[in-house]
Amino acid sequence: MNDLYIALIHHPVHNKEGKIITTSVTNFDLHDLARTGTTYGVKKFFVVTPSEVQQNMVNYIKNYWTAGFGADYNPSRKEAITFLETSPSLEDTCLTIKNHSGSQPLLVATTAKKTEKSVSYSFLRQKKQDGPPLLLMFGTGFGLASEVLDKADYILDPITGVNGYNHLPVRSAVAIILDRLIAK
Amino acid sequence: MNDLYIALIHHPVHNKEGKIITTSVTNFDLHDLARTGTTYGVKKFFVVTPSEVQQNMVNYIKNYWTAGFGADYNPSRKEAITFLETSPSLEDTCLTIKNHSGSQPLLVATTAKKTEKSVSYSFLRQKKQDGPPLLLMFGTGFGLASEVLDKADYILDPITGVNGYNHLPVRSAVAIILDRLIAK
Repeated sequence: MNDLYIALIHHPVHNKEGKIITTSVTNFDLHDLARTGTTYGVKKFFVVTPSEVQQNMVNYIKNYWTAGFGADYNPSRKEAITFLETSPSLEDTCLTIKNHSGSQPLLVATTAKKTEKSVSYSFLRQKKQDGPPLLLMFGTGFGLASEVLDKADYILDPITGVNGYNHLPVRSAVAIILDRLIAK
Repeated sequence: MNDLYIALIHHPVHNKEGKIITTSVTNFDLHDLARTGTTYGVKKFFVVTPSEVQQNMVNYIKNYWTAGFGADYNPSRKEAITFLETSPSLEDTCLTIKNHSGSQPLLVATTAKKTEKSVSYSFLRQKKQDGPPLLLMFGTGFGLASEVLDKADYILDPITGVNGYNHLPVRSAVAIILDRLIAK
């Protein structure tokens, strides 16, 4: 099976008014995505932000759980956080994946809206059986900027519930999408 | 389809050493479970804790998002948090459901370990087509106490990943389980 990577993107994303912003990193996202990603065999989890201060904060947290007090206190957390890496941009993330796996990843965007490029989960499950690594991209704030969606090779179908409410936390969306793509 | 309720249980649960404790409420759990539950049409989300101080804190947070500043600032959050209720115990939760839906719920426990009472997701999906309401019970800390598992009518199969790592956050577990039970 080909390799799967995930990226949590803090820039470029939309705010409530549709403007392009850089969001702050949320500590719970780091732990939840690392733990969920590890459960489903994700190779690396990239926290993408151009802010050096935010990268340093994430690396400080990573160090606490992988080499500091947290590593002894909670070894299973250490195991998960080990897969977390900071990255300044999507381009840099792709370069790291190329160096790590040997080939450029296919870019898969996630969004709460149906688009012309939308593909189903079963389509991507088949795609995943063979070929280059996949990078699943998740937006923070009010979602990935259109320039990221334009760069994507595929956009996954939105997760629809039962009554039109489509305000899932990114932590829940990652869990559901990995389960739909990976679970036996 | 019959009604679905979820309960996040803070007592009785295990700590790291297997002792019975009462965990503290985590703010992110309130928002994430309310939003995910609303997406999948859950009727009510119970935050179960015997601590009155913690119940008051949860009700303060609920009020902020449903009647205070947060209600205007983020109407979709208001819509989700409206379904959240505090409850002092599992017994009290069942009584509220009985008053709300007209009949006693079937109790469905979730756990990270396979048990003799474990049932599959497809079994419960069928069960859900007809009959009394279901109450899905999620543990905090190191999981639901055995007395809760003993009371359960069913225990859901654990979510297994690809490599034996089974330390999903409760926020991710709720999302995956609701998706497996409800999504079309």
